[in-house]
Amino acid sequence: MFDVDAVRADFPILSRQVNNRPLVYLDNAASAQKPQVVIDAVSNAYSGEYANVHRGLHYLSNLATTNYERVRAIIARFLHAPHEDEVIFTSGGTEGINLVSYGWAAPRLQAGDQIVLSVLEHHANIVPWHFLRERQGVELVWVEPEADGSLPPEKMLAAVGPKTRLIAVSHMSNVTGTIVDVGAIAQGARALGVPVLADGSQAAVHMPVDVGALGVDFYAITGHKLYGPSGSGAVWISRARQAEMRPFMGGGDMIDTVTRDKITYAAPPLRFEAGTPGIVNQIGLGVALEYLMGLGMDKIAAHERGLRDYARARLRELNWLNVQGDAPDKGGIFSMTMEGAHAHDLSTILDKRGIAIRAGTHCAMPLMEFYGVTASARASFAMYNTPAEVDALIDGLIFCRELFG
Amino acid sequence: MFDVDAVRADFPILSRQVNNRPLVYLDNAASAQKPQVVIDAVSNAYSGEYANVHRGLHYLSNLATTNYERVRAIIARFLHAPHEDEVIFTSGGTEGINLVSYGWAAPRLQAGDQIVLSVLEHHANIVPWHFLRERQGVELVWVEPEADGSLPPEKMLAAVGPKTRLIAVSHMSNVTGTIVDVGAIAQGARALGVPVLADGSQAAVHMPVDVGALGVDFYAITGHKLYGPSGSGAVWISRARQAEMRPFMGGGDMIDTVTRDKITYAAPPLRFEAGTPGIVNQIGLGVALEYLMGLGMDKIAAHERGLRDYARARLRELNWLNVQGDAPDKGGIFSMTMEGAHAHDLSTILDKRGIAIRAGTHCAMPLMEFYGVTASARASFAMYNTPAEVDALIDGLIFCRELFG
Repeated sequence: MFDVDAVRADFPILSRQVNNRPLVYLDNAASAQKPQVVIDAVSNAYSGEYANVHRGLHYLSNLATTNYERVRAIIARFLHAPHEDEVIFTSGGTEGINLVSYGWAAPRLQAGDQIVLSVLEHHANIVPWHFLRERQGVELVWVEPEADGSLPPEKMLAAVGPKTRLIAVSHMSNVTGTIVDVGAIAQGARALGVPVLADGSQAAVHMPVDVGALGVDFYAITGHKLYGPSGSGAVWISRARQAEMRPFMGGGDMIDTVTRDKITYAAPPLRFEAGTPGIVNQIGLGVALEYLMGLGMDKIAAHERGLRDYARARLRELNWLNVQGDAPDKGGIFSMTMEGAHAHDLSTILDKRGIAIRAGTHCAMPLMEFYGVTASARASFAMYNTPAEVDALIDGLIFCRELFG
Repeated sequence: MFDVDAVRADFPILSRQVNNRPLVYLDNAASAQKPQVVIDAVSNAYSGEYANVHRGLHYLSNLATTNYERVRAIIARFLHAPHEDEVIFTSGGTEGINLVSYGWAAPRLQAGDQIVLSVLEHHANIVPWHFLRERQGVELVWVEPEADGSLPPEKMLAAVGPKTRLIAVSHMSNVTGTIVDVGAIAQGARALGVPVLADGSQAAVHMPVDVGALGVDFYAITGHKLYGPSGSGAVWISRARQAEMRPFMGGGDMIDTVTRDKITYAAPPLRFEAGTPGIVNQIGLGVALEYLMGLGMDKIAAHERGLRDYARARLRELNWLNVQGDAPDKGGIFSMTMEGAHAHDLSTILDKRGIAIRAGTHCAMPLMEFYGVTASARASFAMYNTPAEVDALIDGLIFCRELFG
């Protein structure tokens, strides 16, 4: 069983008050809070086990290297990666996707080549491809979701043509919560010879992920959304795609030899990890992922499905509220607008009641345009949220309606 | 007065033992230890004040944004930057230099254009320029130091020709400790119309830095060497150079608008900071820099000059030891080799006595080649080191000599 009270007790911030009300934290799609084990792991690493990693031969450097490198195996286990060396540490999902764009796509794609991406994407999975459009004439082919926010795999695959070199798609929308059947897309894409990058920044937080079973080529995750520290994360890249990549950032640790007129590179994954990495951040991420796996990603997913169903049902009672997207298969992320009230006002008023939601465009402007809204208020649930917090949100929205209605 | 005992008491790891001996941490050029105030700031941020920054409207997001953005002002003060918006947050010095390479140099430099750099450089200030050589035919023009490791500014300036587009130079060598007169180089370069990038990863840790007075265009610092957290740092870029740059990484926060076929970018510095930044890491760096400024960088520099002079004198007693570089103006960094003993053996044997030094090529292979060594043992001092620790190092080296001599 998933004991949400026990989980909540592991997160110190959840017992604090905001504006003299118990914190109801529903901004998880932006970033998740951290359990005490992660905070302690970070403190302990700095207090007693810190040094730079790799190539150090003294005790603390060996210890830090062991603590750091073991996280690669943890991430591989978390993503069910076939090989540990397919896990490349990054500072987060954004760097992971930029690594793929600069390291794999930029040197391969020619003017007129196409990237297929969905209108659901977060800017992190849009702007790197826009760079290729601006700088080398790559064409972006956009696929719209259905009105309910769902994204049929066959629609993505129908956009693939002879010039398509990549499909870039979110595994879970950070606005509508839509869960995309990335496995079906990857299966179809493989038959067409087109690689698939999945942005797992949201999905990996809320459900089990098996990159091998999905059949994708690139899968990016974001540590701070996964209850881990700032500046942690990884991108999984299959060995085959790694072999096609050139390095992204240059610096220490990613080279084999450097002379004045020649350079040779370290083998992957180090080839793609320049400079001193986010040592303690990644150590903290490892602890966060072990915590999640200890709870069981399937149990977390089941708990969150319950929250999603309850929130969906209660939000439907509010017939004056517009919820953008309502795909059958979605996570607990709800973006909404209310006539007569700006999304920012909703957020500000809920905040007075201790309820943290986000308002704005959620780094997903093409999707906002698709829904014809300039901004929305977004409540996003995580494993530590409760049905009582759904009720608090609903009560808060009703209060807003009374103010503005 | 600089009270080294009081400073030591602020660093919890310094009271631990390694191999049943008190830790003598002399691997500071690789990474510095963290004072309790930094560790606490990180813990407190996660425990009670955490949320994602920017555009959030709820209490915790506003609080985190304030805590995070104030660090920009702290870094500006630390570097004596004319304008706060010239401070761009990075994950460390490597990302800072790659930002300059990808954002400023790559779109401007043509085949045959030249970059002047010194043989003293760390790979972080070499590999990004090698990329430009490999990818677009830029030529690297190398300037050798004198035998004692000093780098006369006029030698750097003499290498500048009509095709020179950038001078990239370390402010302090991480191998020899050489302090480079970057101000004189920048003054001469300005007269020649050539921008200067200074790698301040070492220098900023050990002495006051005034980027305005130096007259450089780009100045990179590394948070984890500055007693700050993993994944923290910044690069100072003058407004004039920022205006010449295109974005580096793409993602959230660095855009103004995104549509399917067009993108506009946020104003600097956000334009160069894609995605969720290293929020808590930078908050910790701010506390570290306030701690340093509270002690006084001039007092820290004076204390370390004392350590350097004492270490230099005592190392000179060991006439069987080769120290690479001995410039009159240098920091407390000593790289050395001993006939008959591999550098790795020195490190391993010293480690048994609780003394942490580094052995290897120190991410500076061209400099190792210049000195004709394949690896060296490096002892690097920081503000919390003491003359007694110099003695421990000397005793350890004498012990090695007895073993191998």
